Amino acid sequence: MNAYTHKVQYYETDMMGITHHANYIHWMEEARIDFMDQLGFPYAKMESDGILSPVRSVSCVYKHPCSFGNEISILVRPEGFTGALLTIGYEMRNQNGELVCEARSEHVFVNREGRIVRLRKEQPEFCRAIEAQFPPKE
Amino acid sequence: MNAYTHKVQYYETDMMGITHHANYIHWMEEARIDFMDQLGFPYAKMESDGILSPVRSVSCVYKHPCSFGNEISILVRPEGFTGALLTIGYEMRNQNGELVCEARSEHVFVNREGRIVRLRKEQPEFCRAIEAQFPPKE
Amino acid sequence: MNAYTHKVQYYETDMMGITHHANYIHWMEEARIDFMDQLGFPYAKMESDGILSPVRSVSCVYKHPCSFGNEISILVRPEGFTGALLTIGYEMRNQNGELVCEARSEHVFVNREGRIVRLRKEQPEFCRAIEAQFPPKE
Amino acid sequence: MNAYTHKVQYYETDMMGITHHANYIHWMEEARIDFMDQLGFPYAKMESDGILSPVRSVSCVYKHPCSFGNEISILVRPEGFTGALLTIGYEMRNQNGELVCEARSEHVFVNREGRIVRLRKEQPEFCRAIEAQFPPKE
Repeated sequence: MNAYTHKVQYYETDMMGITHHANYIHWMEEARIDFMDQLGFPYAKMESDGILSPVRSVSCVYKHPCSFGNEISILVRPEGFTGALLTIGYEMRNQNGELVCEARSEHVFVNREGRIVRLRKEQPEFCRAIEAQFPPKE
Repeated sequence: MNAYTHKVQYYETDMMGITHHANYIHWMEEARIDFMDQLGFPYAKMESDGILSPVRSVSCVYKHPCSFGNEISILVRPEGFTGALLTIGYEMRNQNGELVCEARSEHVFVNREGRIVRLRKEQPEFCRAIEAQFPPKE
Repeated sequence: MNAYTHKVQYYETDMMGITHHANYIHWMEEARIDFMDQLGFPYAKMESDGILSPVRSVSCVYKHPCSFGNEISILVRPEGFTGALLTIGYEMRNQNGELVCEARSEHVFVNREGRIVRLRKEQPEFCRAIEAQFPPKE
Repeated sequence: MNAYTHKVQYYETDMMGITHHANYIHWMEEARIDFMDQLGFPYAKMESDGILSPVRSVSCVYKHPCSFGNEISILVRPEGFTGALLTIGYEMRNQNGELVCEARSEHVFVNREGRIVRLRKEQPEFCRAIEAQFPPKE
């Protein structure tokens, strides 16, 4: 999988002169959606199949500030999948290779009524594609 | 009607040290929704009645910068209503009374299928309440 | 200390019909800044004294969705302070008292040149005020 | 000059299921900064030369909604330049060529102290480069 690149926008900076920390959560989403596209399971397709994927948790550790114009390369790595909960890790580096942020998110999968979807049954190809990205942990 | 107050947040500033100009569009929405609440026609109620109100246009003229911690008082004034198109004006002042921004937005009213709603027929009380806020221009 | 209240804005929702998860990071900042105001150490004052407080990490566990118009009450609790690193916890509840999100952030304190500030020496009153909010853990 | 492309992000949608209207102001900035890069006068370079360019006004007319995953092509056209005030027009089209939004912004140029910069004197090459993009209107 290719890393996703986000160019820091002026509107993402704050009066400290650096990227405001909330924007990294946006970048995680951008990179995750790009990852799903590369995997062959676009998120828009999933939603049109009636499966939503609310975020269960996020965490970010900010290692090095970045600012306007920096090109941030984001590596997305699935780290765990129970069939109900998907854990994804993110490594963000600036154009000099310096680690900017390490992050993680957890995702559940529900239908339009908000009920948990049994992904192994309803989307077996997606499950196999995700699991091909890491050694299964079950 | 009471003016709406927005306190400028840190995350709304940019590296120029002032409020990023895109945030004023958010504040217009905050003030407009508060105005609708005061008018007795909460926007959430309208949506649950099946009426959506997409924004047709916005414009802002920035008169004076503001920044973190400033309390911005926003006066909302309906300026025109044709039954199909509602025009709203906004006057934003800082805690010293200085004019910070003058803005305007236009709104249409559609149903869930995206068709124009005939508001005078379907929401006559709302039309009367809006028009009581200014001399009709038809 | 009083809880901080944030009313969910329309622009904070996403196409899933709920608050987009990145906004909670903004609310943590709003509540934290309000907490500092209540404590008697406004963040703007700290910055004008030459002390910046970059965020070292954030984490959120989303417990229950919320959406447009909901009033979210946010309780801020300092959880640890080493003199160099301040840890803050957040409990967010909707108007029915349901837990919406549990969150945590870590903060460091630096001067304009980016060097760590020795807070116990330079801001002893602030340290005492923070520590009065919880049993010291050193 | 090449058009700038923005892919609509999930976090840019709202509960109406479409792009929230405030985001177009961000896209104008993205496209304008890309235009300056293409012109050979990167905005970051201008700021490091001590010239800031606050936005004087913005306006958007929303022609057609767009949503998550859409690729929006943004054409940037300088429309006027008095030496003190730069006017820029934007035409945004979706992947099918449909007009999504027409917008305009005005910009002034100031130094770090907030005083108007005489651009024709201090940045004559930039003025010539901008004016080469349209017939001068003075």
